[in-house]
Amino acid sequence: MTGGPLEGVKVIDLTTVVVGPICTRTLGDQGASVIKVEAPGGDILRYLAAGSRTKAMSGKFINFNRNKRSIVLDIKQAEGLAALKRLIATADVFVSNVRPAALARAGLDAAALHQLNPRLIHCGIVAFGAGGRYAGRPAYDPIIQSLSGVAGTFERAIGEPRFVPMVMTDHIAGLVAAQSIGFALFRREKTGRGESIEVPMFETMASFVASEHLGAATFEPPEGPSGDARLLSKDYRPLPTKDGFITVRPNDNRQAFAFFDAIGRPELKTDPRFTDPLTRTRNAADYFDVQVQALAERTTADWLEIFAKADVPAAGYNRIDDLLEDPHLGDVGFWLQDDHPTEGRIRRTRTPVTFGGGMRDATLPAPQLGAQTREVLAEAGYAAEEIARMLADGAAA
Amino acid sequence: MTGGPLEGVKVIDLTTVVVGPICTRTLGDQGASVIKVEAPGGDILRYLAAGSRTKAMSGKFINFNRNKRSIVLDIKQAEGLAALKRLIATADVFVSNVRPAALARAGLDAAALHQLNPRLIHCGIVAFGAGGRYAGRPAYDPIIQSLSGVAGTFERAIGEPRFVPMVMTDHIAGLVAAQSIGFALFRREKTGRGESIEVPMFETMASFVASEHLGAATFEPPEGPSGDARLLSKDYRPLPTKDGFITVRPNDNRQAFAFFDAIGRPELKTDPRFTDPLTRTRNAADYFDVQVQALAERTTADWLEIFAKADVPAAGYNRIDDLLEDPHLGDVGFWLQDDHPTEGRIRRTRTPVTFGGGMRDATLPAPQLGAQTREVLAEAGYAAEEIARMLADGAAA
Repeated sequence: MTGGPLEGVKVIDLTTVVVGPICTRTLGDQGASVIKVEAPGGDILRYLAAGSRTKAMSGKFINFNRNKRSIVLDIKQAEGLAALKRLIATADVFVSNVRPAALARAGLDAAALHQLNPRLIHCGIVAFGAGGRYAGRPAYDPIIQSLSGVAGTFERAIGEPRFVPMVMTDHIAGLVAAQSIGFALFRREKTGRGESIEVPMFETMASFVASEHLGAATFEPPEGPSGDARLLSKDYRPLPTKDGFITVRPNDNRQAFAFFDAIGRPELKTDPRFTDPLTRTRNAADYFDVQVQALAERTTADWLEIFAKADVPAAGYNRIDDLLEDPHLGDVGFWLQDDHPTEGRIRRTRTPVTFGGGMRDATLPAPQLGAQTREVLAEAGYAAEEIARMLADGAAA
Repeated sequence: MTGGPLEGVKVIDLTTVVVGPICTRTLGDQGASVIKVEAPGGDILRYLAAGSRTKAMSGKFINFNRNKRSIVLDIKQAEGLAALKRLIATADVFVSNVRPAALARAGLDAAALHQLNPRLIHCGIVAFGAGGRYAGRPAYDPIIQSLSGVAGTFERAIGEPRFVPMVMTDHIAGLVAAQSIGFALFRREKTGRGESIEVPMFETMASFVASEHLGAATFEPPEGPSGDARLLSKDYRPLPTKDGFITVRPNDNRQAFAFFDAIGRPELKTDPRFTDPLTRTRNAADYFDVQVQALAERTTADWLEIFAKADVPAAGYNRIDDLLEDPHLGDVGFWLQDDHPTEGRIRRTRTPVTFGGGMRDATLPAPQLGAQTREVLAEAGYAAEEIARMLADGAAA
């Protein structure tokens, strides 16, 4: 069997920037045929973020838009909107990260979409769920990090709120959207019917944070303060060694006691602060102090050898660029190079998940703006002269 | 239609701590029937993390294990292992986060599982992919944060490597595992065949980080340094106002120019550093300086009103506990309370994603250790006397 698990699934992708493109890239990586519908100006991510060889193809855009074809439609023109609807009518999945009010104005609300294509799965990725007072507000990743408590976890740990230096909430919501589409595709095989899915970023991330940090506030009344003390320590970080950093995580009793032996502090095995997971959680600050003091005494390489022998979970520290040289990633063929048709030689990562039942075997390069406009319109049944007229009118480009 | 999209899917869950339980909770939340198979001592998360009313039911365990039933099997005993295999033989999905060598020793490698149940989807969540030199090493979330570059993004931003104060890589890999299972369930409807899936945490997170931060190093040779400068700034954080914090994200030109007007600096609209997204990315530090200076001048409430009028994306800042009082989350019914059969009154979050085709309608409370051992064995066809013997022998508990 060739092709990924989503082989044969046709996706119309009306999304931009990160949250939507991550969702549709995931679907494409797993075998779906993804048609990226862009406005005449193109996805803003083409121009954002550092690094570009030609003007509408930033490194970040390339990473988030492989395995897609691009069609440019001006859906403010009647013919452009009609073409989008024609594409949707024969698709399996339609993904949008447009505000719902704008979709409704274009005649693409849930009821209209169901009318157009009863088997369609529509996934609307929104910042805030319908029915709540923030619904319809604009949002980017840091807005969601700020509201969902992600930034707040840093204030507990280091005294000031911070964002994770990644578009993490977009990325996670995009993965959850792809997940939800998979579940709905499975259900459609049984029922024959499509459905509308709402993936709200704020609620998705509030759930993420709450699952981790409600802690004692899971109980009503609370049994103590919210938060997992081990994660909220100022020393929850790669710790300095004599020549760099190391991460060590002695978690269960065997690991903790082997760690105490390895650092030459066997007496701590009977210290009442550290006798079991619960006491080590309660005395997280002291447990970190022991680690900070000990680890500074030797080099990273020395410690890694010692902890490997003791079977204590430990690892070195990779900066972003170190990933390119990591020997394990080399072994598993993580880094690939392609010749992009317009951008030249580029690096990309292979899909990290392996499906024994078969993987997508050919990768499409991230498309130039509108590179497949003619091809996609022709596949949708438009005649050559209709396509030419749409291009002349600017309804397509 | 009642029940979630995965209604009717039977999942055998041989996982502990976070990465596996997040995967299977997601499947359960969406309607699957999840049987959590625990060793006699139980999932260590029952005892970890702050907050507990009874001894084997921490707040974190409760959050990650709703919608599951628990059966205790000692798979080191022949009868216990036989029972696990009997459960797997009639399941749709088997999820493990056990090291592959241990699975193989128990006769649960991919070939044996396929023999046992050709329609089975086995998802093996591992720290490191097979075929690479780190394969089989023990790992916890901070190990993966350290190796995958997550911690490294903080060194670029604030001068020291740090972990995100959440078990973020476990959480994300768990979501990706659930996503992958959904895709494989969809494929199985077409092919009638199961498959084995490998979800390696390290590769999954290295892909996450690389997608965001390869940037100019996407190109070979690189067009510049890796990293998205906007995200790696020391000022990428909720910024101080006169009385608290605010997050503002003027991204496209309309938003940026409206922001300059709103802060009384209209002259910046023609400043060559800030004329378009690309120049604002290149001059990210200066753009942040403008924000830091201006925002300190007024209160959060004042700024939110001003930015709302100007349609500039902005939001306040929620600490973990503020989530409990957030008015939007109140509107959408995000927080629910249940009476847990042994733990009393608890809070939980509703499933953030909404499926128009129907949602799981009843929530199972996180189970006491082995609470459904008898029930699950009986469903698997064990007679009452067989169950009694297994309980007496300690093969089940």
